Amino acid sequence: ARLGLPEVVYGPGKTPEQITGVVRSLLRANTGPVLVTRIEQPVASEVCRAVPDAEYDAAARLLVWHRAEPVGFDVAVVSAGTADGGVAAEATGVAGAVGLSVHRISDVGVAGLHRLMAERGPLSGAGAVICIAGMEGALPSVIGGLVACPVIAVPTSVGYGAALDGVTALLAMLSSCAPGVVVVNIDSGFGAAIAAYRMAARR
Amino acid sequence: ARLGLPEVVYGPGKTPEQITGVVRSLLRANTGPVLVTRIEQPVASEVCRAVPDAEYDAAARLLVWHRAEPVGFDVAVVSAGTADGGVAAEATGVAGAVGLSVHRISDVGVAGLHRLMAERGPLSGAGAVICIAGMEGALPSVIGGLVACPVIAVPTSVGYGAALDGVTALLAMLSSCAPGVVVVNIDSGFGAAIAAYRMAARR
Amino acid sequence: ARLGLPEVVYGPGKTPEQITGVVRSLLRANTGPVLVTRIEQPVASEVCRAVPDAEYDAAARLLVWHRAEPVGFDVAVVSAGTADGGVAAEATGVAGAVGLSVHRISDVGVAGLHRLMAERGPLSGAGAVICIAGMEGALPSVIGGLVACPVIAVPTSVGYGAALDGVTALLAMLSSCAPGVVVVNIDSGFGAAIAAYRMAARR
Amino acid sequence: ARLGLPEVVYGPGKTPEQITGVVRSLLRANTGPVLVTRIEQPVASEVCRAVPDAEYDAAARLLVWHRAEPVGFDVAVVSAGTADGGVAAEATGVAGAVGLSVHRISDVGVAGLHRLMAERGPLSGAGAVICIAGMEGALPSVIGGLVACPVIAVPTSVGYGAALDGVTALLAMLSSCAPGVVVVNIDSGFGAAIAAYRMAARR
Amino acid sequence: ARLGLPEVVYGPGKTPEQITGVVRSLLRANTGPVLVTRIEQPVASEVCRAVPDAEYDAAARLLVWHRAEPVGFDVAVVSAGTADGGVAAEATGVAGAVGLSVHRISDVGVAGLHRLMAERGPLSGAGAVICIAGMEGALPSVIGGLVACPVIAVPTSVGYGAALDGVTALLAMLSSCAPGVVVVNIDSGFGAAIAAYRMAARR
Amino acid sequence: ARLGLPEVVYGPGKTPEQITGVVRSLLRANTGPVLVTRIEQPVASEVCRAVPDAEYDAAARLLVWHRAEPVGFDVAVVSAGTADGGVAAEATGVAGAVGLSVHRISDVGVAGLHRLMAERGPLSGAGAVICIAGMEGALPSVIGGLVACPVIAVPTSVGYGAALDGVTALLAMLSSCAPGVVVVNIDSGFGAAIAAYRMAARR
Amino acid sequence: ARLGLPEVVYGPGKTPEQITGVVRSLLRANTGPVLVTRIEQPVASEVCRAVPDAEYDAAARLLVWHRAEPVGFDVAVVSAGTADGGVAAEATGVAGAVGLSVHRISDVGVAGLHRLMAERGPLSGAGAVICIAGMEGALPSVIGGLVACPVIAVPTSVGYGAALDGVTALLAMLSSCAPGVVVVNIDSGFGAAIAAYRMAARR
Amino acid sequence: ARLGLPEVVYGPGKTPEQITGVVRSLLRANTGPVLVTRIEQPVASEVCRAVPDAEYDAAARLLVWHRAEPVGFDVAVVSAGTADGGVAAEATGVAGAVGLSVHRISDVGVAGLHRLMAERGPLSGAGAVICIAGMEGALPSVIGGLVACPVIAVPTSVGYGAALDGVTALLAMLSSCAPGVVVVNIDSGFGAAIAAYRMAARR
Ligand SMILES: Nc1ncnc2c1ncn2[C@@H]1O[C@H](COP(=O)(O)O)[C@@H](O)[C@H]1O
Ligand SMILES: Nc1ncnc2c1ncn2[C@@H]1O[C@H](COP(=O)(O)O)[C@@H](O)[C@H]1O
Ligand SMILES: Nc1ncnc2c1ncn2[C@@H]1O[C@H](COP(=O)(O)O)[C@@H](O)[C@H]1O
Ligand SMILES: Nc1ncnc2c1ncn2[C@@H]1O[C@H](COP(=O)(O)O)[C@@H](O)[C@H]1O
Ligand SMILES: [Mg+2]
Ligand SMILES: [Mg+2]
Ligand SMILES: [Mg+2]
Ligand SMILES: [Mg+2]
Ligand SMILES: [Mg+2]
Ligand SMILES: [Mg+2]
Ligand SMILES: [Mg+2]
Ligand SMILES: [Mg+2]
Repeated sequence: ARLGLPEVVYGPGKTPEQITGVVRSLLRANTGPVLVTRIEQPVASEVCRAVPDAEYDAAARLLVWHRAEPVGFDVAVVSAGTADGGVAAEATGVAGAVGLSVHRISDVGVAGLHRLMAERGPLSGAGAVICIAGMEGALPSVIGGLVACPVIAVPTSVGYGAALDGVTALLAMLSSCAPGVVVVNIDSGFGAAIAAYRMAARR
Repeated sequence: ARLGLPEVVYGPGKTPEQITGVVRSLLRANTGPVLVTRIEQPVASEVCRAVPDAEYDAAARLLVWHRAEPVGFDVAVVSAGTADGGVAAEATGVAGAVGLSVHRISDVGVAGLHRLMAERGPLSGAGAVICIAGMEGALPSVIGGLVACPVIAVPTSVGYGAALDGVTALLAMLSSCAPGVVVVNIDSGFGAAIAAYRMAARR
Repeated sequence: ARLGLPEVVYGPGKTPEQITGVVRSLLRANTGPVLVTRIEQPVASEVCRAVPDAEYDAAARLLVWHRAEPVGFDVAVVSAGTADGGVAAEATGVAGAVGLSVHRISDVGVAGLHRLMAERGPLSGAGAVICIAGMEGALPSVIGGLVACPVIAVPTSVGYGAALDGVTALLAMLSSCAPGVVVVNIDSGFGAAIAAYRMAARR
Repeated sequence: ARLGLPEVVYGPGKTPEQITGVVRSLLRANTGPVLVTRIEQPVASEVCRAVPDAEYDAAARLLVWHRAEPVGFDVAVVSAGTADGGVAAEATGVAGAVGLSVHRISDVGVAGLHRLMAERGPLSGAGAVICIAGMEGALPSVIGGLVACPVIAVPTSVGYGAALDGVTALLAMLSSCAPGVVVVNIDSGFGAAIAAYRMAARR
Repeated sequence: ARLGLPEVVYGPGKTPEQITGVVRSLLRANTGPVLVTRIEQPVASEVCRAVPDAEYDAAARLLVWHRAEPVGFDVAVVSAGTADGGVAAEATGVAGAVGLSVHRISDVGVAGLHRLMAERGPLSGAGAVICIAGMEGALPSVIGGLVACPVIAVPTSVGYGAALDGVTALLAMLSSCAPGVVVVNIDSGFGAAIAAYRMAARR
Repeated sequence: ARLGLPEVVYGPGKTPEQITGVVRSLLRANTGPVLVTRIEQPVASEVCRAVPDAEYDAAARLLVWHRAEPVGFDVAVVSAGTADGGVAAEATGVAGAVGLSVHRISDVGVAGLHRLMAERGPLSGAGAVICIAGMEGALPSVIGGLVACPVIAVPTSVGYGAALDGVTALLAMLSSCAPGVVVVNIDSGFGAAIAAYRMAARR
Repeated sequence: ARLGLPEVVYGPGKTPEQITGVVRSLLRANTGPVLVTRIEQPVASEVCRAVPDAEYDAAARLLVWHRAEPVGFDVAVVSAGTADGGVAAEATGVAGAVGLSVHRISDVGVAGLHRLMAERGPLSGAGAVICIAGMEGALPSVIGGLVACPVIAVPTSVGYGAALDGVTALLAMLSSCAPGVVVVNIDSGFGAAIAAYRMAARR
Repeated sequence: ARLGLPEVVYGPGKTPEQITGVVRSLLRANTGPVLVTRIEQPVASEVCRAVPDAEYDAAARLLVWHRAEPVGFDVAVVSAGTADGGVAAEATGVAGAVGLSVHRISDVGVAGLHRLMAERGPLSGAGAVICIAGMEGALPSVIGGLVACPVIAVPTSVGYGAALDGVTALLAMLSSCAPGVVVVNIDSGFGAAIAAYRMAARR
């Protein structure tokens, strides 16, 4: 909780014992939320047994202790396809854990504009939009033309061939013709949520 | 005119004399249209002096002899930004020269959907849509969701940085979530027009 | 069936229950064909038990309900090597399901021109040619010089080393010296079939 | 000024006449700021003669009409090397034109931490930090660990060899170990400034 | 002339004085051919004035002293397009200078098989075929299926967009489905000619 | 055996039944050698049971029927590291099967020149050298400076990190400062052996 | 031990028998240290049974015989994240085996400068610093500004998406704004340790 | 001169006035050497007029004030081709200016080992070898096997096609089979010299 940012442990490559150790020492030193990201069910179960009071979100692969109080900042988490669901779950879970209020909008790909247009109301009320898309990564360009608030684009590794494991979506989002769209790493729902938290925090 | 396809000379790297020679021999052997693409004004002027009855389109960098009769096939040529104009001019010029009827729609970027939506009428009447976009190359995905006819996507080298001289738009178009979008080479208005001609020709 | 295009579910990353749910709701809302692509045998079997009247094509990894009536449009599906068979099966299966008539030509690699030349008859009768090749991806260039109808090139991930999982074939097809060849994503037999369907549909 | 975002014309590839035309029609339809980016001195001079009351910033290659009133939002624009100056000037110029208050910090490369540490005071007062760096693009990682507000990273094309015209800095910033850093396109001081404006606007 | 290979100076980045110096010392120490490659007209003229008895081939950008006697080995130099002419000229010039007998075949792109088929006679008489092609680089695959002798493929930087300055042709040639095709560097007519010379020399 | 080249079946992606079928029909139509490459032990065993008189080389993953008589052409197969052994075995096995006489030289990496120098005798007697190396791929440059006969370079996928699965060795070999070195695909011992066979055959 | 460098066997792709054979012959011919790198526990156990007196370090995946006497040269091995631990263990293990004295500093990422600053003392006493980092690879730039001794940067494959399996860290380290930083291959703790040994050895 | 490292100004993108200003303030604050790298003749002349006592080395594009006393450390600067001369001049010039003693060895490409072998004496006496090569970048692998001292590899952008402006040499050097070779950025003679200085300084 230095700087007021939450404490977050990156799960991959760590044993349950290592994670348990780090989490315990963070809980001792902090009053704010403590998170572990990208942690699979079996490892999570072991950690939960060792350190009580955790919430585990399997879709998000996320463990949370000491969930924050709502800070009064609304984030829309928008995604294009079913396969982008895991990344959206991570963004939603992390954002909620640090006190943001999340409005989740699914299945609004740019090849079906009518579905996206039906969601313009909720979108325009948001303090920030986290916009998650794989393949051609076009969604942030369209949404960036519909709202004036910050648009945080998250490319996903969904797709095949020319989708290049998310690199195509990443490059497309960085080249967006909608001004002021910002981008985080491929599949980083976590990064997008913390970016939104920074926007909320600095007010 | 073997196969009924037009005779097309690729201009770059040829002297006016070489071009004049090739064009003369093609005109002698053909009754259909003869074209030179990517030919700049000074070279074009010299060739025009040597081989009469040419039409030169400077924006398209295109020379045409023996323009074809209309074949009764409507193509919409749609582009996103002003900078894509040269590629759109080439697509339009070549399509017209081989007998297609072109409807030109400009300035309909995906970050300003209202402008694109205003053109839905003309779009839905087309036999094929040639869809030209640089940067994130999102336009074909949106249009592919609005029309059932063939969508021929042309990535352009417009943009900078992560746009990678058109490679980003190319990859994005190939990864389009709109089913059945087809793609030609970067900046190839010519390729798109001949693709449309193949669609018209095979009826 | 919005726009008259078929409803197609992308199988990867979905549970049998999710697929069953989506397919049921699509069948309720549609009279046209409903497809699931890239679905492996075990998942397909479960879905078939839950939703009756499906046809499963294992080579194509394709599930079909409500196969369309023939629309009177002939497509040649041409491939170079044995290993390209799965992609060709997907193109053939999807094309058939949406009502196109498919003529299948195999084993006509460019290093054995005599075999390809023997198929010139069937090729020249097609309304469109879907041309599937891995490694150097040269087949569409040769076929594009033999027919005047649309040539839809599908690069495959067949090959090793410099074949770069299909990227080399993709780039080669986009750079084809045969005018008007169009390209879809690597291994996307599905995309090629829908592209052909758009050509048939728009008449 | 749709959505409250400023009207911005992208200069490259447009003639002075084209720019003059677009700017005139935007000034007629808007009361907010109108900008032209990436416009060189000679073209700018011609446009200034044709459309009065412009301010030209040569370092930023920026033309501005109808500068906005201050909106009460502080942005720190931080850069590492002298060669990043043009990008920093664009970020500063655009941010100022849309009403943000800019604090400029130069010459604080990560290989000389003492200089950066001396600026911690001004940094911690900012509503957002625009962080500009070429070569290895390490600055946002360090600053992201020093402040809790949004950090907008701008990779620049400064450097040679393995710097790959800014791609290395871009990839490094996206891979930053500082949580919640967001990234815009290479050399896009403009994109960063509008991203900051979106953060200010949505309050 | 160590090993019996010719002495070849690479021209770029050398002053006329430097080239003159190297050539003089090589002529003093050798009885075999001495070549300078990639040398433009003005530099070549200066060198020719300083070192007598040179032959300059402007299309090949090649200077030759002490041309070798014919060694009785026939090479076919085959190219696809007019723009590949410079590379073909270099291959032809170097091969001739080292004593190979060259048969030049032009304009036999794979999209026009009839022209290539008309040349099967001369092709089948060759000791080796140097096969030069840009864009999709398909020519060696077709020729490799027509002849049993060595096929040396030379990719050229001809083309645009997805041709990636010759990288696409290079990768395609390396992935050729014709067995035993070998490849040299992009635009290296020189490398192909020396490879053929090695084949002749080792008999 | 069209053209006198051997019949070679590419094993991957084929069932034992498919391979058996192809091999049987090739043996019926040919008197020359028939090969299957990249075939693993279990599949090979099944094929051997079904089609008698095969020789299987496990290190080379190669099946051979009707081994050719010696044609009187010597090939040196040289490799740098232990890990390049599989590729060298394929080159050796295929070369032997088509009638070339192979001299195998191992463990002569460029960082230990004394070992390479000790092999200069055998090297200088060869009709062609197949030179196999991973990592930095430097071996063909050194050998190309030691012999005047053809040098066929085979990059391997041995190494990690910057070795990029053989792409680095491939690019290095194509950029070799030794004139006239030719290159085949990554890990293609097969391609190198057939290239050598073409050199032998055309005499 | 030619040149005084240690004998090091690269484990991957070798059977326990092959490793045993090589190690035995090296031990017979050498008095200095003999190492096997990247060798997993089960293979290591077998080798240890066959060749007595080995030390195995599981974290480093390293086998050592005949550990060298201390040479009186201090190396700091610094790493940023927990996940870089394996590479740091290899650097530490190899350095120790060849006689260097290692000071290990962990968990000093650039987003938490206070931790790094606390280690300035030990850093400034080192003869060389081995600096290990994944993701954006920024650590060597910061350390290069804090010490005057050699800084050997090791990029790791830690990270995801834009980290590109260590390529981003590699490029960033090569582009470092700290002068005179040198770089070894991705994940090559081995390479860094031998580089440090060369610095110690040449005194 | 913080840390004892020399003060070095990077010339590109700075006006003569800017350079003059920086140099003056550095000379005022330092007693050690002050350098400007990559500065062309005309700019250098202006700066020399403004700030007396500079030495300009045109081949190295280097300006030096306050050359250091010899520190008693010998560096060999080895290069392969004539075209690598500029980078070698920069390495030599910077090394000399900071007090290292340079032994320059030219024209020792790996395709001509006899020339390299003739230089083994001087090489083995060096405290460090700076090894400069373009194209396939093989020189450091060979030299790394000949000497036990540090080998600092500098890839150059010399070459064409597959040489990829120095990226191929860079990757090859990082993948070197000679243990402990370290690498700096493409064309960075400067970086190599400072790396050598760090090695000298820390004794
Ligand atoms: N094999 C396939 N390749 C690419 N896109 C597909 C494929 N199968 C279905 N789709 C598309 O994927 C989308 C459906 O995705 P989903 O909603 O996740 O089932 C639709 O746009 C389909 O057109
Ligand atoms: N066009 C060329 N492409 C590649 N290598 C060349 C070329 N011309 C000459 N060389 C090689 O370059 C080296 C001569 O380089 P240099 O000493 O700089 O003249 C010799 O190895 C030649 O074989
Ligand atoms: N190891 C190999 N690498 C590359 N091509 C091969 C290999 N083995 C066989 N081939 C080629 O693959 C083709 C046979 O493919 P198929 O008909 O699928 O067996 C022929 O062109 C062979 O020359
Ligand atoms: N982990 C490693 N990374 C890179 N090279 C290594 C490694 N371990 C050993 N080597 C080198 O690999 C070569 C030994 O290869 P090998 O003969 O296959 O055991 C020697 O040049 C060693 O210096
Ligand atoms: Mg998407
Ligand atoms: Mg666009
Ligand atoms: Mg193929
Ligand atoms: Mg920087
Ligand atoms: Mg070609
Ligand atoms: Mg090697
Ligand atoms: Mg790190
Ligand atoms: Mg070199």
